[in-house]
Amino acid sequence: MNGTESGKSAGGSSTRNGGRKSRKYRKRGLLTSPGTLTYIGPDIGLKTKIRRIRYSEHMYKEEAVKSLDECRSAENGENFTTWLNIDGIHEVPLIEKLGKLYHLHPLLLEDVVNTEHKPKLELYDTGHLFLTLKMLHVDSESPISISSEHVSFVLGKNYVLSFQEELTSDIFTTVENRLEASVGKTRRNGPDYLLFALMDVVVDNYFIVLEKLGDALDATEDQVIRGVQELSLKDMYALKRELTLARRQIWPLRDMVNQLIREDNMQISKEAIPYYRDLYDHIMQVLDTIDSYRELVASLVDVHLSTISNRMNQVMKTLTIFSAVFMPLTFIVGVYGMNFEFMPELKDPNGYYYVWGLMVAVTIGMIFYFKTKKWM
Amino acid sequence: MNGTESGKSAGGSSTRNGGRKSRKYRKRGLLTSPGTLTYIGPDIGLKTKIRRIRYSEHMYKEEAVKSLDECRSAENGENFTTWLNIDGIHEVPLIEKLGKLYHLHPLLLEDVVNTEHKPKLELYDTGHLFLTLKMLHVDSESPISISSEHVSFVLGKNYVLSFQEELTSDIFTTVENRLEASVGKTRRNGPDYLLFALMDVVVDNYFIVLEKLGDALDATEDQVIRGVQELSLKDMYALKRELTLARRQIWPLRDMVNQLIREDNMQISKEAIPYYRDLYDHIMQVLDTIDSYRELVASLVDVHLSTISNRMNQVMKTLTIFSAVFMPLTFIVGVYGMNFEFMPELKDPNGYYYVWGLMVAVTIGMIFYFKTKKWM
Amino acid sequence: MNGTESGKSAGGSSTRNGGRKSRKYRKRGLLTSPGTLTYIGPDIGLKTKIRRIRYSEHMYKEEAVKSLDECRSAENGENFTTWLNIDGIHEVPLIEKLGKLYHLHPLLLEDVVNTEHKPKLELYDTGHLFLTLKMLHVDSESPISISSEHVSFVLGKNYVLSFQEELTSDIFTTVENRLEASVGKTRRNGPDYLLFALMDVVVDNYFIVLEKLGDALDATEDQVIRGVQELSLKDMYALKRELTLARRQIWPLRDMVNQLIREDNMQISKEAIPYYRDLYDHIMQVLDTIDSYRELVASLVDVHLSTISNRMNQVMKTLTIFSAVFMPLTFIVGVYGMNFEFMPELKDPNGYYYVWGLMVAVTIGMIFYFKTKKWM
Amino acid sequence: MNGTESGKSAGGSSTRNGGRKSRKYRKRGLLTSPGTLTYIGPDIGLKTKIRRIRYSEHMYKEEAVKSLDECRSAENGENFTTWLNIDGIHEVPLIEKLGKLYHLHPLLLEDVVNTEHKPKLELYDTGHLFLTLKMLHVDSESPISISSEHVSFVLGKNYVLSFQEELTSDIFTTVENRLEASVGKTRRNGPDYLLFALMDVVVDNYFIVLEKLGDALDATEDQVIRGVQELSLKDMYALKRELTLARRQIWPLRDMVNQLIREDNMQISKEAIPYYRDLYDHIMQVLDTIDSYRELVASLVDVHLSTISNRMNQVMKTLTIFSAVFMPLTFIVGVYGMNFEFMPELKDPNGYYYVWGLMVAVTIGMIFYFKTKKWM
Amino acid sequence: MNGTESGKSAGGSSTRNGGRKSRKYRKRGLLTSPGTLTYIGPDIGLKTKIRRIRYSEHMYKEEAVKSLDECRSAENGENFTTWLNIDGIHEVPLIEKLGKLYHLHPLLLEDVVNTEHKPKLELYDTGHLFLTLKMLHVDSESPISISSEHVSFVLGKNYVLSFQEELTSDIFTTVENRLEASVGKTRRNGPDYLLFALMDVVVDNYFIVLEKLGDALDATEDQVIRGVQELSLKDMYALKRELTLARRQIWPLRDMVNQLIREDNMQISKEAIPYYRDLYDHIMQVLDTIDSYRELVASLVDVHLSTISNRMNQVMKTLTIFSAVFMPLTFIVGVYGMNFEFMPELKDPNGYYYVWGLMVAVTIGMIFYFKTKKWM
Repeated sequence: MNGTESGKSAGGSSTRNGGRKSRKYRKRGLLTSPGTLTYIGPDIGLKTKIRRIRYSEHMYKEEAVKSLDECRSAENGENFTTWLNIDGIHEVPLIEKLGKLYHLHPLLLEDVVNTEHKPKLELYDTGHLFLTLKMLHVDSESPISISSEHVSFVLGKNYVLSFQEELTSDIFTTVENRLEASVGKTRRNGPDYLLFALMDVVVDNYFIVLEKLGDALDATEDQVIRGVQELSLKDMYALKRELTLARRQIWPLRDMVNQLIREDNMQISKEAIPYYRDLYDHIMQVLDTIDSYRELVASLVDVHLSTISNRMNQVMKTLTIFSAVFMPLTFIVGVYGMNFEFMPELKDPNGYYYVWGLMVAVTIGMIFYFKTKKWM
Repeated sequence: MNGTESGKSAGGSSTRNGGRKSRKYRKRGLLTSPGTLTYIGPDIGLKTKIRRIRYSEHMYKEEAVKSLDECRSAENGENFTTWLNIDGIHEVPLIEKLGKLYHLHPLLLEDVVNTEHKPKLELYDTGHLFLTLKMLHVDSESPISISSEHVSFVLGKNYVLSFQEELTSDIFTTVENRLEASVGKTRRNGPDYLLFALMDVVVDNYFIVLEKLGDALDATEDQVIRGVQELSLKDMYALKRELTLARRQIWPLRDMVNQLIREDNMQISKEAIPYYRDLYDHIMQVLDTIDSYRELVASLVDVHLSTISNRMNQVMKTLTIFSAVFMPLTFIVGVYGMNFEFMPELKDPNGYYYVWGLMVAVTIGMIFYFKTKKWM
Repeated sequence: MNGTESGKSAGGSSTRNGGRKSRKYRKRGLLTSPGTLTYIGPDIGLKTKIRRIRYSEHMYKEEAVKSLDECRSAENGENFTTWLNIDGIHEVPLIEKLGKLYHLHPLLLEDVVNTEHKPKLELYDTGHLFLTLKMLHVDSESPISISSEHVSFVLGKNYVLSFQEELTSDIFTTVENRLEASVGKTRRNGPDYLLFALMDVVVDNYFIVLEKLGDALDATEDQVIRGVQELSLKDMYALKRELTLARRQIWPLRDMVNQLIREDNMQISKEAIPYYRDLYDHIMQVLDTIDSYRELVASLVDVHLSTISNRMNQVMKTLTIFSAVFMPLTFIVGVYGMNFEFMPELKDPNGYYYVWGLMVAVTIGMIFYFKTKKWM
Repeated sequence: MNGTESGKSAGGSSTRNGGRKSRKYRKRGLLTSPGTLTYIGPDIGLKTKIRRIRYSEHMYKEEAVKSLDECRSAENGENFTTWLNIDGIHEVPLIEKLGKLYHLHPLLLEDVVNTEHKPKLELYDTGHLFLTLKMLHVDSESPISISSEHVSFVLGKNYVLSFQEELTSDIFTTVENRLEASVGKTRRNGPDYLLFALMDVVVDNYFIVLEKLGDALDATEDQVIRGVQELSLKDMYALKRELTLARRQIWPLRDMVNQLIREDNMQISKEAIPYYRDLYDHIMQVLDTIDSYRELVASLVDVHLSTISNRMNQVMKTLTIFSAVFMPLTFIVGVYGMNFEFMPELKDPNGYYYVWGLMVAVTIGMIFYFKTKKWM
Repeated sequence: MNGTESGKSAGGSSTRNGGRKSRKYRKRGLLTSPGTLTYIGPDIGLKTKIRRIRYSEHMYKEEAVKSLDECRSAENGENFTTWLNIDGIHEVPLIEKLGKLYHLHPLLLEDVVNTEHKPKLELYDTGHLFLTLKMLHVDSESPISISSEHVSFVLGKNYVLSFQEELTSDIFTTVENRLEASVGKTRRNGPDYLLFALMDVVVDNYFIVLEKLGDALDATEDQVIRGVQELSLKDMYALKRELTLARRQIWPLRDMVNQLIREDNMQISKEAIPYYRDLYDHIMQVLDTIDSYRELVASLVDVHLSTISNRMNQVMKTLTIFSAVFMPLTFIVGVYGMNFEFMPELKDPNGYYYVWGLMVAVTIGMIFYFKTKKWM
C-alpha cells in the first residue's frame, strides 16, 4: 500500500500564471500508475514546518514537530483536540509518512499535494472527512492578478490536519492566537468547531481580496466616467477574467458547506451547525459580490465602448464638415484661377470682392445647414 | 456566551454607494472571532428609539421603551401580542442586551446588525423565526439611484421584534395607525398576521420605488423616440444597473415567503396563509415588473444605438456626395488653370462657358447617380 | 368580513400603455389595509351587465340579472348548471356583494378586480377553483400593439362565474350560442366542461392575435428582403416587445392547465381531462409560435443590420475610389498651374496633350487596381 | 359522438411557407365547438390510399383497401399483426369513419388531421398509444429550405395505424419490402417492433436531410474561407433558421421515445426496448449534429463579418494614405500657383526642380511614416 | 440472431474533417434493417490485431490471438482476469464473430463499429457493461485540429474487451506494461480495476491534448498582447471550435462515470469505487480547463477586436487631421491663384510672406485645436 499517486492534474489553470508554470511539472505524473504522489506546484526551497497544538477547555500546548515518529504515538484515547498544521506540501515522502501514521487513503494524499485540484469535499470509509479549497491572494501588481494557494483539511475523530502551500506566511496564526488566548468559544468546542474556524479564516480572506478588487474597480470606474482615453480595454478584460477565475475557485465551496450542514454526519456536531450555516451565508455573500463586480465590469466596458464610439462619431462629423465647407470654396477659387482669355468676371474691378462675398455666403449657408442637422 | 460576532460581510454592495462606504467599516470585523457583533453601516448620530405596542382584539397600548430592563419582565403568559419596534441598529451593546432578554442566538444578532447581509429566512432551535430583508428607497437625484435599508424581523410565540436602520423616517407607522384604529382584521389576529402586515408595508414600498423608476424610464423612452442626441448611454446603463441591483435585493424574498407558505411550521397559522400567498403574488408582480423594465431598457439602448448609427450613416453619405461632386469639378477647373503655352481651349472665346456647361453636366450626372443609388 | 382589499398591484405593465395609465390609479390602494378592493383599470362609463344562464341536457334558460338579490336564492340543490357572466368589474360594491352571496374569499375578489394581476390558478378552502387570465386584443394601429383584458373564472360545485372587463364586446357569446343550439357535447357536460369551453374561447383568441402579428411580420419580412431603406428598426423592436409581452401573459397558463390535469381534484371530472389536455396542447402551440416569431424578428433585425452595413461599405468604397482617382489628377494639373518662369514642359507644344495622356493613364491604372482588389 | 374537432392549430409554422399558407385555413376551425375535425394543410387532389398488410412470422398478405367496411371486421382475436397504412389525411369523413371503426378518441383524430400539431405521445384510456411526429424533406432549391410532413401512428393491441400526408411518395415502402422479404427480425416481432421500424425510417430520413444541410454548409464554409465577397449573410441566416426549425420539430421526439423506454407500459414489450433505446441514441445524434451545425453557422457568420470588416479597414487605410500623400503635394503646387508679383522662388531657374525635390521628399516621408505604422 | 446493424450514425462530426469524410460512408447503412453492422470510419489497410492478456496476482500471460476459435474456449470458470484488446474495428465479420463468442447484443456491436456514436454507458440484460468513449489526438498542424478515435469497452464477469480504431499506435501499451511489471495494485484487482486503468489512460491523454491546446493559446495570447496585426481571427474561431468539439466529446463521460459510482451494480466492486471517483475528479478537471480555455479565447477575440478597432480609430483621426489641416491651406493658396485683374494683395511686395504667415497661423491653430480635443 505504497501511498503514491499520479499528478495527472491538468492546467486547471487556477490563475493564468500558476496554470502555465504547472504545465511543465504536470507531465511527469501522466500515464503513471494511479497512486503515485507527484507534487506539481512551484519549487520551494524551505523545509516543511509542522506545528502540533493540543488543547481542551482548560489546557493549551503548542510545539513544533521535529520528527513524525513522535507524532501519533501519544494521541490515542485522549480527551483533548489535536491540530496538526503542516506548512508545506512539496516534500512528498513526508506527506506519505504522515498518511501512513493517520491511515489516510492514498487518493486523499494525491489531492493534498495536487495543487491544481479544485475544491472538493469527500468522506472516506475510514471516517476521515477530507476538504480541499483555495486560499486567494492578490499580487500587488497593476493590473491586479489573483494567485491561489492549495489548502486541505482532514477532520478525524479528535484531530484536524491542515495542509497549506508554503508560499505565503502561515495564514492560520490568527486561529492559533485565539486558541491560546481562549477568546470566544474556540477552545470550548471540539475539532468540528476548529475546522469551521480555519475555513472561516479562508473565507474572511476572500473579503480582503474582494476589497482590493473593489478598489481597482473603483479606480477604473472613475476613469471611465471621466472619459480617460488611454484607458485600456485589456485591463478591464483582465479584471473580468480574474473575477471569473476567483468565482470558479470559490463556487464549489458553496456546495461543500451546504453538504456539511445538510447531511446527518457524525463529523459535525449539532452545536457547530449554526456556525457552518453562518459560513455558508458568507460564502454566498462573496459569490454575490463577485457577480455584482462582474456585471459592473461588463457595464463599464459597455460605457467605455460607447464613449469611444461617440468620440469616433465626433471625428467623422468634423471631417465631413471640413470637407463640405472647403470643397466648394476651393472649387470657386479654382474657377477664377482658370486661364481663359475671355472670362468677364476677371475684368470686373470688384470681381475679387464679389467672389469673397460668394464664398462667405457659401460658408454661412453650410454652417447653417449643419446647425439644422445638429452636426455642430 | 458573550453575544458578539464578526462583521465579515463584504461589499455586497447593495447599491454602489452604500457598498463603497461600508468597505471601510467592514475590515474591523474581519479575522475576529465569530460571535463579535460589528455594525458596519454609516455613522448615525441619533439614539436608538424603541417602541413597544401591546394589543389584543379589545385592547391597544403603545409606549416608548426607555430602559430595556422593563421590557421582557411583564410579558410571560399573556394573551395579547407584543410588537417591539427597534428603530436603529447601530448601538451594538443595546442589541446584545435585547438578544439576551429574548434568548436570541448570537449569529441571529450578527445578521441583524450586518447591514450588508442579503435577505434570508432562518428558523432557530429556540423557536425563533428570523427574517431579514431590504427596504428600498429612491434617492431623488438624476440619474435615479436606489439605496437600501436593512430590516429584520423576529417572530416569537406571542411577540414580533422589528429592527430597522434609522436612516429614514419610521416606515411602520402605517401599521401602527391601522392597529390603533383597529381597521380591517389587523388586531383580531396574532403575531403571524402582524409579521405579514409589516412585510406587506415593505413590499408596498417596492411598488413606489418601481413607480419612480417607471417614470424615469418613460422620460428616457420619450427622448429615445424623439431622437434626442445628447441622451447619454451612461444614464441608461445606470438605470439598468439599478434595476439589476433591486432585483437582487428582492429576489430572495420570493423563496422566503414561499417557504413560509409551504412548510408545516407552527409559526404561521392556517388563517394567515392566504395573506402570505397574496404577499407572494405581489412579490412576483414586483419581480415581473422589474424584468419587463430591464427588457425595456435593453430595447431602448438598442433603438438608441441604431439611431446613432443611422445618423452616422447620414454623415458618411453627405461626405461622400460632397467629395464625389466637387472632386471632378475641382479637377476640371484645375485643368484650365494650367499654364501651358499651347492650350487651344483657352483661346476659344466661349471656352469659359463650355467649361461651365461641362461642370453643370457633371454635377447633374452625379446627383442623378446618387438618386438612383438612393443615397440622397 | 368586509370584502375590501388593496389594489397594490404595480405596473405589471401588461401592455405598455395599460401599464402606464394604471400607475396613477395604483397608488390609491398602496399602504391600505389588505382586504381593501380597489379597481385600477381605466374608467368605464357603462353599467355592469350580468347574465345568468341555466342549463342541463334538456333545458336552457338565459336571463339578464337586474338585482343580485334574486341571484343565489334559487340555486341550491339543483341538477342543472348555472353560469353567471359578469361583464364589467369596475363597480366594486357590486363585486363585493356577489362575493358575499357566493362566499368568496376577499383575496379572491381582490384578484378579480386587480386588472394588473398576472394569470394564476388558486384553490380556496371553500372549494372554489379560481382562475384568472388575460384575453389579448390587437389594436388596429401600425405598428401593431397588443392590449389585454383581465378575465377571471370561479368554478363552484354546480356553477361557473365569469368576470371580464367591459372594454370590448362580450367574448363569450359564441359559447352562449353553442349552449343554446346544443351543439356538440357542450350541454351534456357539467360546469367543468363549461369552464373548459370558456378558456378554449380565450385561447382561440390568441390564435387570431397571432395571425395578425404574423401578417405584420410577413410585411416586415418582405420589406427586409426587398431591402427597403426607410424600414425602421424601431418597429421591429416594438414588434419584438409585443411578442415578449404576449408571451409573458400566456406563459403562466401552461402551468395552470397542467396543474388542472395533473392534480387529483374534485373540480375536474375524468371525462373532461382529455379536453383540458387538448387545451394544454393548444397553449403550447401558441407559445411555440410566439417563440418562432421572436426568432424570426431577431433574424430579420440581423439581416436588416447587415443590409445597412453592406450599403455603408458601398458608400465608403465609392468615396475612396473617387478620392483615389481625382487626387492624383488634381495634383497633376496643379503642377502645371505653377507659375515658375522656367518649366520646360510648359513650352512644349504637345505638353498639354502629354499631360492628358498621363492623366488618362493614371485613371486607367487606378481603375485597374480597384478592379483587382474587387472594390468596383 | 360525432368525431369532429376544431383545427385551432395556429401557424406553428413548421416551415415558413407551410406556416403561412395554413394561416388561411386555420381560421375556419377557430371558435367552433371542440371536436370538429378540420384539415388545414394544402389542398390535395388525390384520393386517400389505404393499404392493409397482415403478417406473422410465417405469413404475409398485402392488399389495397377499397372500402372501410371490410376493414375491421376480420381482425378480432387473430394471432397476426395488422398494419393499416393511410396515405392521405385530407379526407376528413374517411378519417372520422376509421376513428369509429377503431374506437379512437375524437381528440386523437383532431391531432391526426391537424398538420400543424407538434410531435407528441399520448396514451388514451382506450389503450391506444398515439404518436405524431414530423417527416422532414429538403426542397431542392437554393438556399435550402426544409418542408415537413405530418405523420401519426396509433399502436393498438395487435395492429398499427400509420397516417401520412400525401405530399411525397409513400415513405414506408422500405418497411413493406423488408416485411415481405422477411429480412432481419421484422416479421418475427409484434406491432411494437413494427412501430419502431416505422419510426426508425422517419429518423433515418432526418440523417438524409442533415446530409444535404451539411453539404450546403460545406459549400458556404468554402466560400467564407476563400473570402468570396458576394456571399450573402441572408443565406447564412436562412440556413440557421432552417436548422432551428428542424431542431424544434425533432426535439420533442427525444422525450417521446424516452417515455416509451422508461414507462412500464403494456404496449412496448421487453424485447423491443433495446431497439427503442437505439432509436433514442439516433435521435440524440441527430440533435447533436444539428447543434454542431448551428454553432458552425454562427462561427461562419462571425468569420464572414470579420472578413468584411477587415476589407473595410483596408479601404479606409487606402483612402487615408491617398489623402495624406496627395494633400500636401496639392498644397505645395498650389503655393507656386499663386500670382503674387514678388515670389522669389518663381524667378529661380531651378525652382521648379527644387519643388519636385521637395514633393518627392514629402512623398517618401509619408510612405516611410505609414510603413512604420504598418498601414501599408 | 444475425449480428448486423445499420450505420445510421450521421455526421456527428466529431471533428470537422472526420465528420465530412464519414458522410460518404454513412449513407450505405441508412434505411437498411436495424441490426446491420456497417463500418463508417476511414479505410484501413491493416489487419485487425487482437491481443489476449490473462493475469492474476501471481500470473501474467500475454499472447497475440491468431484465430478467434481458440479464444473463448479456455475462459470458463477461471480465477484469473482476461483482457482482450482488439486493435481495429473495420473488419465487420470479425467483430460479428467475436460478438457471438461473448454473447454480445447486436445493438452493442453496432455501437462498437459506429465510429460516429457519441460516448455512452449501457448495461445489457446479459450482464455486460458497455462503454464507448473518444480518445482525442492533436494533429500536429497549425492551426491546431483535434481528431478523435472511437474506443469501446465491454466489462464481463471476469474479462474486459477493449476495442479501438487502428488509426494510431496502441494506446493501452502503458497498461500492458504496468500489468507485466506488476506495478501498483494493477494486478491485485479484478476486471473492474482494469477497466478503470484503461479509462484512466484515455483521460490522461485528454490532459496531453489540453497541454498542446494550451500552448497554442499561449502563443496566440502573446500575439494578441503584442498587437500583431496579421493575427487571424479565423484561427481563434477555429481554436474555439476545436475546444467546443472536445468538450462535446468529453462531457458525456462525466455522467457515465458518475453513474458507475452511484449505481449499486455488481460490475464495480466497492474497493474500486474510490478510483472511479478519482477518475470523475479528473474528468471534471479536464472539462473545467476546457471551459477556462474557451473563456480565454473569447476574451482574446474581444481584446483583438478592440485592438483592431483602436487602430481604425487612429487611421480615421489621421485622415481627419490631414484633411482639416490641408484643406484650409489649399483654399488659401487657391485664393491667390485667382487671376482677377484687381487683387490688391498680389501687388503688395510682402503679400507672399503675409500669406505664409497666415498659413502657419492656421496650421498652428488647427494643431492646437486637435491637441485640445486629444486627437493627436
